[in-house]
Amino acid sequence: MEKPVFDQNFRMQFEELLKWRRDVRSFRNDEVDPQLTERLIALATLAPSVGYSQPWRFVLVESAECRESIRANFELCNRQALDAYSGEKAQLYAKLKLAGLRDAPVHLAVFLNQQTECGSGLGRMTMPETLEYSAILAVHTLWLAARSYGLGVGWVSILDPAKVNTSLNLPEEWKLIAYLCIGYPQEEHPSPELLRNGWEVKLPASDILIRR
Amino acid sequence: MEKPVFDQNFRMQFEELLKWRRDVRSFRNDEVDPQLTERLIALATLAPSVGYSQPWRFVLVESAECRESIRANFELCNRQALDAYSGEKAQLYAKLKLAGLRDAPVHLAVFLNQQTECGSGLGRMTMPETLEYSAILAVHTLWLAARSYGLGVGWVSILDPAKVNTSLNLPEEWKLIAYLCIGYPQEEHPSPELLRNGWEVKLPASDILIRR
Repeated sequence: MEKPVFDQNFRMQFEELLKWRRDVRSFRNDEVDPQLTERLIALATLAPSVGYSQPWRFVLVESAECRESIRANFELCNRQALDAYSGEKAQLYAKLKLAGLRDAPVHLAVFLNQQTECGSGLGRMTMPETLEYSAILAVHTLWLAARSYGLGVGWVSILDPAKVNTSLNLPEEWKLIAYLCIGYPQEEHPSPELLRNGWEVKLPASDILIRR
Repeated sequence: MEKPVFDQNFRMQFEELLKWRRDVRSFRNDEVDPQLTERLIALATLAPSVGYSQPWRFVLVESAECRESIRANFELCNRQALDAYSGEKAQLYAKLKLAGLRDAPVHLAVFLNQQTECGSGLGRMTMPETLEYSAILAVHTLWLAARSYGLGVGWVSILDPAKVNTSLNLPEEWKLIAYLCIGYPQEEHPSPELLRNGWEVKLPASDILIRR
């Protein structure tokens, strides 16, 4: 295979991809071609993994019963989270749309198989958490690939993860990494919703880069 | 800002980027323009973060003393890891080059600031680990961006993370996520070294995708 050369034009487009990626909460109700969903999962497996352990497991949540159970899980956790804020933060929190569970045509739960023997432990004796990191890199790979096909992804983390395993009848040793809503976005933006809505500001470089 | 359209040509190039990304262990000794390194860090901050918490902290490890301390840390951990294998796996492990700490012109340690108040806890009440996940997504973003500039990145996880904090004189509450070696690669490949060397095989889709 000939080694690719990435030019300035590609780099500019890649930067656009990073900027317009976004965490999407509002979806159009257009279907997503099932072959495209499988293609995204195949692309996600190009992510790096410690010791080439490939510990990512993808669960397409299709049944109405499973989806309803996940929605109930989110709604309970979201109410509890709202109760933890007060004043302006509580008002702002209540206004934010934090999940697209009702509209998204595709629900994909990504798990870590904590018991995998694949990779024979290479590279994770001193930092065993790198196994988990590998599954997270697969989520990010899928997210960027989805955006390149015009799809939006919303990562829902306001869930009780143990209950997700029960709802989906999955082994306890599978750890929920991300519950993803996938579909064509209603709106597109080059900046985070939480920045646009005044929840948080962008940190300056001086706050995040130091030298030793 | 006008919304970008990603075409089939971009998607093919993006797939090449994913395939040729690689975890690089052998570097040429060409310098990396310091402005390019800072640019990669700026691109990394386009990664998603839970509640827009931006918990990533980047430490450019430049002094000979700090680098020597990290190398000693790796060598000790790597010897201990080798001792844990036996037979063929031990022989194969001993042959693998698992770090490019001597040759890489740029050493970048990425940390999670576990104490950040940025984001006000949004989205991480039930899955607090998503704060850590955010820093990991920044590492992956930087990795892909580096490859688009022809640079290779090697993620060294065979380190005692607490000792890295001590060597770099960093607060205990900063958690080491990744120690990255960055430079121009000596070789380029479209498949993982551990696959080419027979350490592990690629898992079939049927092993990683299920439906519910």
